[in-house]
Amino acid sequence: MNGGLRRITEAEIEAIAIGAGVLGTGGGGSTYLGAIEARVYLREYGGVCPVISVDELVDEAIVCTVSVMGAPTVGVEKMARGDEVSLACRAWEEHTGKQMVAIGIAEIGGGNALSPIPAALQLGLPLIDGDSMGRAFPELQMDTLMIGGVPPVPFVLGDCHGNVAIFNELDTPKRAEEYARNLTIEMGGSAALVMPVTDGATLKRHLIRDTLTLSWRLGNIILECRANGEDPAEHVAAAANGFILYRGKIVDVFRRTVKGFARGRMRIASLDHGQEELVIDFQNENLIAVQGDQILCTVPDLISLLTLEEGEPVGTEAIRYGLRVAVLAMPAPKELKTTTALASVGPAAFGYPDVAFQALPGDLL
Amino acid sequence: MNGGLRRITEAEIEAIAIGAGVLGTGGGGSTYLGAIEARVYLREYGGVCPVISVDELVDEAIVCTVSVMGAPTVGVEKMARGDEVSLACRAWEEHTGKQMVAIGIAEIGGGNALSPIPAALQLGLPLIDGDSMGRAFPELQMDTLMIGGVPPVPFVLGDCHGNVAIFNELDTPKRAEEYARNLTIEMGGSAALVMPVTDGATLKRHLIRDTLTLSWRLGNIILECRANGEDPAEHVAAAANGFILYRGKIVDVFRRTVKGFARGRMRIASLDHGQEELVIDFQNENLIAVQGDQILCTVPDLISLLTLEEGEPVGTEAIRYGLRVAVLAMPAPKELKTTTALASVGPAAFGYPDVAFQALPGDLL
Repeated sequence: MNGGLRRITEAEIEAIAIGAGVLGTGGGGSTYLGAIEARVYLREYGGVCPVISVDELVDEAIVCTVSVMGAPTVGVEKMARGDEVSLACRAWEEHTGKQMVAIGIAEIGGGNALSPIPAALQLGLPLIDGDSMGRAFPELQMDTLMIGGVPPVPFVLGDCHGNVAIFNELDTPKRAEEYARNLTIEMGGSAALVMPVTDGATLKRHLIRDTLTLSWRLGNIILECRANGEDPAEHVAAAANGFILYRGKIVDVFRRTVKGFARGRMRIASLDHGQEELVIDFQNENLIAVQGDQILCTVPDLISLLTLEEGEPVGTEAIRYGLRVAVLAMPAPKELKTTTALASVGPAAFGYPDVAFQALPGDLL
Repeated sequence: MNGGLRRITEAEIEAIAIGAGVLGTGGGGSTYLGAIEARVYLREYGGVCPVISVDELVDEAIVCTVSVMGAPTVGVEKMARGDEVSLACRAWEEHTGKQMVAIGIAEIGGGNALSPIPAALQLGLPLIDGDSMGRAFPELQMDTLMIGGVPPVPFVLGDCHGNVAIFNELDTPKRAEEYARNLTIEMGGSAALVMPVTDGATLKRHLIRDTLTLSWRLGNIILECRANGEDPAEHVAAAANGFILYRGKIVDVFRRTVKGFARGRMRIASLDHGQEELVIDFQNENLIAVQGDQILCTVPDLISLLTLEEGEPVGTEAIRYGLRVAVLAMPAPKELKTTTALASVGPAAFGYPDVAFQALPGDLL
């Protein structure tokens, strides 16, 4: 991508955080603490985190994608130790006897857009512009690398006490999710996750490129609109090849916690009552938007809420009665819409066996 | 020990299983499936599992203690894959680049007296006569190696699908217990555990010696008494330097499941009503025996129930109204009764902060 992000300094953090909120589609966790930590470590490590393209890596380069696993609600309250992710990377290197040359982002949506930055700085490695989800997803097997058949092992989970577990053999990516989820809960609700570790050639095949740049651009658009007194929703939608699905007021929220996920449904009424209500189902992330009997947008396409006044992305944990929002529909990256990918991240994977994924109007896939 | 067990064949399995039941002190899990598996693998691997003394190992020898972690109730129902423990040993060897030369028993009480046998056969390694608990205990840090300061890492947990997790860094043995317990539950309620892996010198310092031979002897005593029509309780007590605390009928059982443990209390009335009732509290294992306001025996000393008719050891999951039993009190190995050890395995560690451990009459510690 021309004009892509080549380095991260403190000046870029705010925009990346806001843009990652948009790509979080209601989930992915708060970027608030992550932005503070990224600034702290940028100050400690010389102020600059280099960013490279995956295409600049040789095929043999050892690379990994990293993230913090855990419930978004925990991420709001529990401060990180700060070196969980880099310790987990080091444990992987010791276990395998190989050395990483760059750090990838596993999930660009929400807080995990920022959690790799301290690790890259501490390890003295560049960050790769791109990620393996293209948005936020609730489970770790919903990842283009694993969808593409890259094995989840060996992967490493590290806690805030410096404790490290290495999963060496796992029969399926879903098993990786189950075991890691369970241990993460015991580790206090959040844990550093290093996986998949792979090579440049494999990452070139599967990574969704330039999503770090995308988050930075979307954030900048919102910041500029705020400065100019414009409504950001229209501009953000255009930059992400999407459109505004609805504008209105949240009039009802039903939410319950099921197996660690925030599942629920919200109803949004138009401000002039001229339109039928919009109903959005969510499981951490917004999954499906319905008006009357018409399905307007489904996962993996992105359904994001921005507040009307500030263009602030709204997480599903923060939605409440009375909030005025624009609802954006944005096409997911093409890597998420293959037949194979849809089996892992389409409506059926989220408990809607009867809903077929339909591309958004104008999306050529 | 003179005349110790030097090899295990099918002929020894029944006695070891019965004796391990006595040393299980009500817990440690059933030996039923473990005895079947040991016989199956003995047949498959030439019929003989060699047994050595820890004192026959050089100080530099790499050795480990192995067991199956999980709830006793699960162990009754869930068949093992059969190679979980040896796969976990192999994963440890790959991770560290070291090679084991002998297999130790982590817990001689209950099913874990038998679970190392298939692993030793599959790996072609001798079994060490001894263990690191001297009985059964509910948690993995209640182990003479960890009580003696041997670190719990790296330890390996393996499930029945061949999945393997290596815990590389852990700050405390209690953390090992928490993380392993949690992952074991997700692994279906039972998992192969390889820990601690150490050297001959360390194992010589901490292992409780000859407990495999002891379980075999106690089992043989019971089998001989059955054949001769004698009551085994008296003979077993004498062989274990203990005595019969009570003979009677279980008249009440109160049991509840708390955090995966079977906690409860039983009352036993004497058969001729000539004595005050005996009350035994248990948490998987029998913990404390009280008559009136007098504490007769406490953990770590062994409180074991044998049926009056057959001398069959009775697990706390099998106690029921009407069962006629002899209650045996047997002194714990001296390694469990040091001040340091009592902090981990004395009454206070089981929720009795006001009960001091008192040696049994005649026990010189």
